[in-house]
Amino acid sequence: MSNIYVLGAGMVGSAMAIDLAKKHHVTISDISSEVLSRVVEKEPSLKTEILDVTDTKDLASKIKDADLVLSAVPGFLGFETLKKIILQGKNTVDISFFPENALELNQLALENNVTAIVDCGVAPGMDNVILGYYNETHDIDFFECLVGGLPKVKKWPFCYKAPFSPVDVIEEYTRPARYIENGELIVRPPLTDCEFVEFDKVGTLESFNSDGLRSIIHTMPHIKNMKEKTLRYPGHVEYVRVLKESGFFHDEPIFENGQSALDVTSKILFKEWKLNENEEELTVMRVTIEGVNKATKHRENISFDLYDEFDHETKISSMARTTGYTATAAVNMYLDGLVSKKGILPPELVGSDKLCYDYFFNYLEDRGVKYLKKINRID
Amino acid sequence: MSNIYVLGAGMVGSAMAIDLAKKHHVTISDISSEVLSRVVEKEPSLKTEILDVTDTKDLASKIKDADLVLSAVPGFLGFETLKKIILQGKNTVDISFFPENALELNQLALENNVTAIVDCGVAPGMDNVILGYYNETHDIDFFECLVGGLPKVKKWPFCYKAPFSPVDVIEEYTRPARYIENGELIVRPPLTDCEFVEFDKVGTLESFNSDGLRSIIHTMPHIKNMKEKTLRYPGHVEYVRVLKESGFFHDEPIFENGQSALDVTSKILFKEWKLNENEEELTVMRVTIEGVNKATKHRENISFDLYDEFDHETKISSMARTTGYTATAAVNMYLDGLVSKKGILPPELVGSDKLCYDYFFNYLEDRGVKYLKKINRID
Repeated sequence: MSNIYVLGAGMVGSAMAIDLAKKHHVTISDISSEVLSRVVEKEPSLKTEILDVTDTKDLASKIKDADLVLSAVPGFLGFETLKKIILQGKNTVDISFFPENALELNQLALENNVTAIVDCGVAPGMDNVILGYYNETHDIDFFECLVGGLPKVKKWPFCYKAPFSPVDVIEEYTRPARYIENGELIVRPPLTDCEFVEFDKVGTLESFNSDGLRSIIHTMPHIKNMKEKTLRYPGHVEYVRVLKESGFFHDEPIFENGQSALDVTSKILFKEWKLNENEEELTVMRVTIEGVNKATKHRENISFDLYDEFDHETKISSMARTTGYTATAAVNMYLDGLVSKKGILPPELVGSDKLCYDYFFNYLEDRGVKYLKKINRID
Repeated sequence: MSNIYVLGAGMVGSAMAIDLAKKHHVTISDISSEVLSRVVEKEPSLKTEILDVTDTKDLASKIKDADLVLSAVPGFLGFETLKKIILQGKNTVDISFFPENALELNQLALENNVTAIVDCGVAPGMDNVILGYYNETHDIDFFECLVGGLPKVKKWPFCYKAPFSPVDVIEEYTRPARYIENGELIVRPPLTDCEFVEFDKVGTLESFNSDGLRSIIHTMPHIKNMKEKTLRYPGHVEYVRVLKESGFFHDEPIFENGQSALDVTSKILFKEWKLNENEEELTVMRVTIEGVNKATKHRENISFDLYDEFDHETKISSMARTTGYTATAAVNMYLDGLVSKKGILPPELVGSDKLCYDYFFNYLEDRGVKYLKKINRID
């Protein structure tokens, strides 16, 4: 039994704390006491603490006795928080998905003898684990990850709901998308290259370029083609592009009070896009890898399909299940002594170890998160 | 030569003043000196006066010597301004298209011995003139007016531009639409009953319910089916409905400064929807009437098609031409002594007189605004 300190009691943070409480002493912290009291209602064994992670001193004192810190703070706070955890010499797993490049903290982590597993959710996360594993056994020249979190009920026009603010969704719709094609880094506007793709249980979804490759742009420079695309119900992208083209996402201040079009749009869309508690949602992901099997010398197409839904029994969302349980798998495998490397570890550097790779899939399967793997020879 | 006082020097007001200056002493007024100086540049014979029409005393003193007042003020000022003109005992032609029912001022106009021709543009305006005329010769049971002002260049997504603020366009997209079906007044949400309709020179346009019948709901109670629909390029309505459904047109204050979603949306769309000076636009209208010809006893389908464009030579917009020259026709026919009735006269009560009806069409044709008439026997 270890002491685990969870930062952030949002939808995913609280689900992770509840999962970890089965085996460990878990303290969960948040800036909001209201959020914390809701978590304790579900899992009374949790210890709760009010904490503002920007208060460096308080953060340091609160995580002092932790064997591991699990960070699930909002993205905009993630990078600075990770830095502080490392400076305290604490090992950590991070799912804050901050926009900065975590690998910039590698030297700092090594100096502080820290293991920091970052981006450890479903995507980024499990797609990296899969890529890391097959990168050992195959000469990969193609990697693609299609992923989306979607509401079960499709309400026109956007057919979309998210458990976070529209401003964070729109960020994904405005940040230029990077992908690797024939060994070159290509930068394209987001929401481009729309394609319809078929999925079991949901039917046709629409994929589009988004900026989701993150660490593997740096850790997998030998792979000539890598692409990440987001999935939405058909029609969503067109309507988002209508807003974008008409100026609704501009971020310069245009109103007397200094607000931008993006600020007001985000506020207006909040009601339309907000996933309410206990509202059913699902996660769809397809990871495709192609390359030559180093052992057999045959070219293979390897695909992993994930379909996961809101859990009626536990009332835990699919996003919390697929993202959070990947991170809690990493927590447990670290505490079980499977991860000995130090420094910043994106999941591809963990998944490259078969024991860790298997640990992830077994841990997730125990919790009902099942990936369907197919391998086909294509030469 | 008469003295004509024009209120409002906007796009239509200034075009009307220039047209009337050929035959009359014309004074044009506006709250903005900048707008006035631009009009005088085009037509130096015009006298200009700065005037705030809400200043009742100043308005009264300025129109004192006018033989006729032509009101082209913004819609929200129209009704009150018309009332003041009537109280001054001045005959008037009005194209302010205010939301209130002009006929409520009929008693006041009669008491002041005033002729007030209202709604005297293209639509409302010429469709009323046509209906008024054929109402004399036919037992009409069907009237439909399809009308739209459109930019010549179709820019995705909305393919729309207007010479007035988006808030006035959106008003048309939120006000319930009224039409008459089988003798019953039907109230439907706007933007409904979309249909594709073909037009020469522009191709396929999309029609939808809007609240444009205005006075004829009151003056033509015997006609069992009457409908007015707005025309836009295909796709426009769908995207407008996306905004509407997502809350972008809500008018309750939701921002700290008391602004509503509608306020900020209008501001954001301004750039996208604003028709710039000298930007080419066009007017499309189709008026269809069906009924039994009282003379021949045959059932006939009568249609009038209008297609008009921005005039390259004079740089006068199609909206100013089709709307403004209908009003200046009314001004001239009144001054020529063709209109003897007193009270509030919507154009159907003017067009019922064959001399006036012919005057409108001849006047417009002289200015290149041409209606294509077709009459077919359909029994």
